Amino acid sequence: MGFDLLLLAPVGSILALGFALYLALSILKMDEGTDKMKEIAQAVRVGAQAYLKRQYLGISIFFVVVFFILLAMAMKNYLVIFVPFAFLTGGIFSGLSGFIGMNIATQSSNRTAQAASKSLNSGLRVAFSSGAVMGLTVVGLGLLDLSIWYYFLNWYYSCHAIPLGTDKIAAITSTMLCFGMGASSMALFARVGGGIFTKAADVGADLVGKVEAGIPEDDARNPAVIADNVGDNVGDVAGMGADLYESYVGSIVATSALGVAAGLGVAGVTVPMVMAAVGVIASIIGTFFVKSGEQASQKVLLAALRKGVFTSSLIVAVISYFLVRYSLGVEHLGVYWSVLAGLVAGVLIGLCTEYYTSSGFKPTRSIADASLTGPATVIIGGIAVGMMSTAIPVIIVCVAILISFFASGGAANFNSGLYGIAISAVGMLSTLGITLATDAYGPVADNAGGNAQMANLPPEVRKRTDALDSLGNTTAATGKGFAIGSAALTALALIAAYKDQVMILGKDVNTSMMNPTVLVGLLLGGMLPFLFCSMTMRAVGRAAGKIVVEVRRQFKEIIGIMEGTAKPDYARCVTIATAAAQKEMIAPSLLAIVAPIAVGLLIGIDAVAGLLMGATVTGFVLAVMMANSGGAWDNAKKFVEEGHHGGKGSPAHKATVVGDTVGDPFKDTSGPSLNILIKLMSMVSIVFASFIIKNTLFK
Amino acid sequence: MGFDLLLLAPVGSILALGFALYLALSILKMDEGTDKMKEIAQAVRVGAQAYLKRQYLGISIFFVVVFFILLAMAMKNYLVIFVPFAFLTGGIFSGLSGFIGMNIATQSSNRTAQAASKSLNSGLRVAFSSGAVMGLTVVGLGLLDLSIWYYFLNWYYSCHAIPLGTDKIAAITSTMLCFGMGASSMALFARVGGGIFTKAADVGADLVGKVEAGIPEDDARNPAVIADNVGDNVGDVAGMGADLYESYVGSIVATSALGVAAGLGVAGVTVPMVMAAVGVIASIIGTFFVKSGEQASQKVLLAALRKGVFTSSLIVAVISYFLVRYSLGVEHLGVYWSVLAGLVAGVLIGLCTEYYTSSGFKPTRSIADASLTGPATVIIGGIAVGMMSTAIPVIIVCVAILISFFASGGAANFNSGLYGIAISAVGMLSTLGITLATDAYGPVADNAGGNAQMANLPPEVRKRTDALDSLGNTTAATGKGFAIGSAALTALALIAAYKDQVMILGKDVNTSMMNPTVLVGLLLGGMLPFLFCSMTMRAVGRAAGKIVVEVRRQFKEIIGIMEGTAKPDYARCVTIATAAAQKEMIAPSLLAIVAPIAVGLLIGIDAVAGLLMGATVTGFVLAVMMANSGGAWDNAKKFVEEGHHGGKGSPAHKATVVGDTVGDPFKDTSGPSLNILIKLMSMVSIVFASFIIKNTLFK
Repeated sequence: MGFDLLLLAPVGSILALGFALYLALSILKMDEGTDKMKEIAQAVRVGAQAYLKRQYLGISIFFVVVFFILLAMAMKNYLVIFVPFAFLTGGIFSGLSGFIGMNIATQSSNRTAQAASKSLNSGLRVAFSSGAVMGLTVVGLGLLDLSIWYYFLNWYYSCHAIPLGTDKIAAITSTMLCFGMGASSMALFARVGGGIFTKAADVGADLVGKVEAGIPEDDARNPAVIADNVGDNVGDVAGMGADLYESYVGSIVATSALGVAAGLGVAGVTVPMVMAAVGVIASIIGTFFVKSGEQASQKVLLAALRKGVFTSSLIVAVISYFLVRYSLGVEHLGVYWSVLAGLVAGVLIGLCTEYYTSSGFKPTRSIADASLTGPATVIIGGIAVGMMSTAIPVIIVCVAILISFFASGGAANFNSGLYGIAISAVGMLSTLGITLATDAYGPVADNAGGNAQMANLPPEVRKRTDALDSLGNTTAATGKGFAIGSAALTALALIAAYKDQVMILGKDVNTSMMNPTVLVGLLLGGMLPFLFCSMTMRAVGRAAGKIVVEVRRQFKEIIGIMEGTAKPDYARCVTIATAAAQKEMIAPSLLAIVAPIAVGLLIGIDAVAGLLMGATVTGFVLAVMMANSGGAWDNAKKFVEEGHHGGKGSPAHKATVVGDTVGDPFKDTSGPSLNILIKLMSMVSIVFASFIIKNTLFK
Repeated sequence: MGFDLLLLAPVGSILALGFALYLALSILKMDEGTDKMKEIAQAVRVGAQAYLKRQYLGISIFFVVVFFILLAMAMKNYLVIFVPFAFLTGGIFSGLSGFIGMNIATQSSNRTAQAASKSLNSGLRVAFSSGAVMGLTVVGLGLLDLSIWYYFLNWYYSCHAIPLGTDKIAAITSTMLCFGMGASSMALFARVGGGIFTKAADVGADLVGKVEAGIPEDDARNPAVIADNVGDNVGDVAGMGADLYESYVGSIVATSALGVAAGLGVAGVTVPMVMAAVGVIASIIGTFFVKSGEQASQKVLLAALRKGVFTSSLIVAVISYFLVRYSLGVEHLGVYWSVLAGLVAGVLIGLCTEYYTSSGFKPTRSIADASLTGPATVIIGGIAVGMMSTAIPVIIVCVAILISFFASGGAANFNSGLYGIAISAVGMLSTLGITLATDAYGPVADNAGGNAQMANLPPEVRKRTDALDSLGNTTAATGKGFAIGSAALTALALIAAYKDQVMILGKDVNTSMMNPTVLVGLLLGGMLPFLFCSMTMRAVGRAAGKIVVEVRRQFKEIIGIMEGTAKPDYARCVTIATAAAQKEMIAPSLLAIVAPIAVGLLIGIDAVAGLLMGATVTGFVLAVMMANSGGAWDNAKKFVEEGHHGGKGSPAHKATVVGDTVGDPFKDTSGPSLNILIKLMSMVSIVFASFIIKNTLFK
């Protein structure tokens, strides 16, 4: 029974990829606009590709090195021989989805601007389709990778010896679990590198262009303007995609592994994959609901986007019931409530994020009001709002944890409860195909605005792209909340899977907080997100400094830039930002990878459990705070720009610009990178568990 | 053997109080300076007393209410009958030490200014003596309270029935443990209320005086200037004193309680008290080392202060060896290393704090450099420095935990290890008499500067008081690091004591992090410090807003203020700040008290353990970050004011002023209040443990 249904996984994967291809082709058929528009889009595309090329080159060195390390570990029997290869495919598939998503996004910006010449709705449709390509590629490739490995391992262990101490299904899930490390590593580089690139370009462009030279944002005379546009794509499309790709596959493999421990057998292992496949189909259906009349207002468009997401969620909610009922059996029907808890929690966290970061509500308004007493009160207000905004998402996740643990029968069977927590993450992420679409649509709209501005399109077009962009900010906030919430649940599932894997290796993890090594792990783990944020924020500062120097140099040395008679050297800014991002992402990335191994070797496997938990708790809260402070500052600035408190150019506006600049690395670099930090550390711990157990100083 | 030594506790207490009285009397004999100086000091004194009067009135309502709640609980046998009374004495003694410390501090400011007319060293001696009065009063009253209760309970349980399930010594320590809640509650109000008062007055005075009216800091024409000076006393003297009073008695009673569980008998219970008494005597001896030649430089003075602290530490380190050796016996000699680990960790954390916040080192310099690109980069830089600065203190505490656990034999006897961790906190705090003196000296120097400025003393005097103030900033940074580190260790000891108390009540706490209720507790606990900081920061903002309005009103309505012909209404600003602080401290205080009870009733005793641990981990890291960001911003501003990057009035200076203003609530309100939050929540959990166990929904 479970097995027949599992066919849905490759089928869903192929459907997603096929539909993504169909959408991509229909985008490519659309009108590209004027020559000027094409030229600008081309420049962004070339920049983005140059970034990705260099990024993937750097990352491939890392992957080759780690591949051989893992291979050596496999040779010494620390790992199953498939792990190094699974590591590679995880990384390659994640990288591929980033590549596809970014390519289509850079193809869509001028087409969106052109379509917006007709109507708001036409513009939305192009941008949303581009987002849907990204969303469906991520889930499609994720499911494909999972399916290939599952079927392969299932076949392999049917005709070869199963590793000592496990049965077939445990052998399969143990191996697949490790494959998440490839996706995690890729995501880290994409998020950290992309985050540094995008904010270095953004801050650098603003500091010289807007502040010093007094030219508008997205002005073609600014040498860093293309880099800024490239940054939107590498950060918010490729980075976000890789982040959620990782959560997606991570939560599924962790749930599968916990399914074995819970004694749910093959069905327990396959249900998460099947549910993901159901989510893919629901997402595709959902995209058809994102439509409205040609002359729709922004509000109607937002409602249209929401309708798509809610429809998909509803479909998953209904089908999951039957899936759980007939796959796991009526005695495990409680698992359904776990799925539902995750699904609902994801939606609620998104709404909560919107409340705290939208200028339609009190928190962001209070920051705008604080601008009347200067930048210091704007900063204090923004940090206070961000800190305040952590309460509800944490409570939502806590309620989801309790419901999913106990509904899945955790009181009687502890491992069933953990399975419930893990599958709630799968439930939350099941509709990723469409939620990511509404999110990845944002940067396309942003770039379309830049394109329209630089190509001097008529004001009403620019107004429409502004409306699309603003809508994108709302969905981006929702998406960010969703990404953080799902990362937290996935990380918890991975921690449970870590304990489980150590037990398979014949050791037990003492997870009591009173155990001094766990306690020390908790403290170190609680500190790591702060250290990590500090490193990424400084990295942005240094990289932005390089852009500032370059933009100043071009303004000075290239005669005629300001008059529009000479063209700035856009490519150089892209190159500089790329090189800086490459260099700066090394240290924080190493921290994430080395910390759990070092703690394990020095203070033992219990301390690692503490480390992971401490990092997850603090990382989750800090990520919410940073994302929401940043979002609220951004929208407070926009609110003032709309004419409140003196409008553009007033002292209040200048104060909010300070807030926005501080918020940039908060919300687009450091905050989102924390999602990866907490997941990757768990992944590393799982993969290196056997190595640590045998070599730790602290037995 | 242990018992004879215990006499040292009351003896040490009386010595401390006697020496404090001697110092106080010698201060009062000193020259008060000119009439103008007396008048200003009088205004500050009156303001401070008005604040304390109102504050203590408000708090006494709280204490009466809680007293009757505890009494009712005692009637229902949830608590021993002595707890409500112990709660009262804990609060009264803490309040008394705040009262004495603040009174002598406000008597010393003009005398310090007058003495500084002679030489830097004379000024230092007055200010330091004032600090020593505070330090010795805190430890003296703390030890007195402990001694009285110990001797009383020891006598009582010798001739009355011992509560069921415990022996005499356990009955004594259980009751004494609860007495910490009184000290904790008092500390919370002192820190939060004092923190809000001081920063509301400071920010309010600066925003109108410095920024709008363009008059210097501490200018007598500013109506909020007296409130600002009062604030230094209520925040940094009374608040800091209550904070450390709580850590002091909290760590001692927690260690005693854990001594019973560790099976160390009466000696295990009394050793922490005796060690504290040794520390008192060492502190008194240490004060005699704080002296230098009359024409000493600032550097020499700092060395003199350090010499005092190091001498005291050395004395404690030596005598503790013999104390442990002969009191606990040679088989428990390992406990000595625990004490030493705490003592050394305290010193190291202080030095680390200095590195990150002093303009003599790279981190603060980097913030000053960032001022060249405006306020946004100053903010990002300061937050990055604060986040970075969390790493080393956390690692120091972790090393101290591991050493003290294993040195005390935790590997063989788990409870001995916990006793080791707890006694390391006692070791760290043993020299509190003198470390608090170097810290409480700061606000006196600050006020002396204000007095000199307002009384128009010659520039060389003002220069000397500035030097004293700057020295005070260094010692304040060290003191803050010390307060946070000791709070973290104390909180951990209290969490262990909580688990222990629940076991005495016949239940077991499941502290496994994989337990979903513990996990939920951890997440909620990890979030609470953020919520708490958000509340206190907003409170400062609102209170400062009221001061701003009032100062503006006086400038407008009182004709002749600016010309110096009319006197501003200082008292009104004090009244407003007092009322605002009173009102604003209620919500965050309730959060700290209600959270553990609510979590316990809703999700059970295991969740409370998670809550306490989560709050301690995040609270510790966040407190370090906020204190150090704030300190670094402050000193970056001072560094620019010394003439770097354009000096006073330059755009760089304005950018650092923004940083300093943001840092004010960070370092003086929200950050330090976290120390109390984590300790008080543990205290509340211990006192209400029995109530929660019987009434929780989640059994």
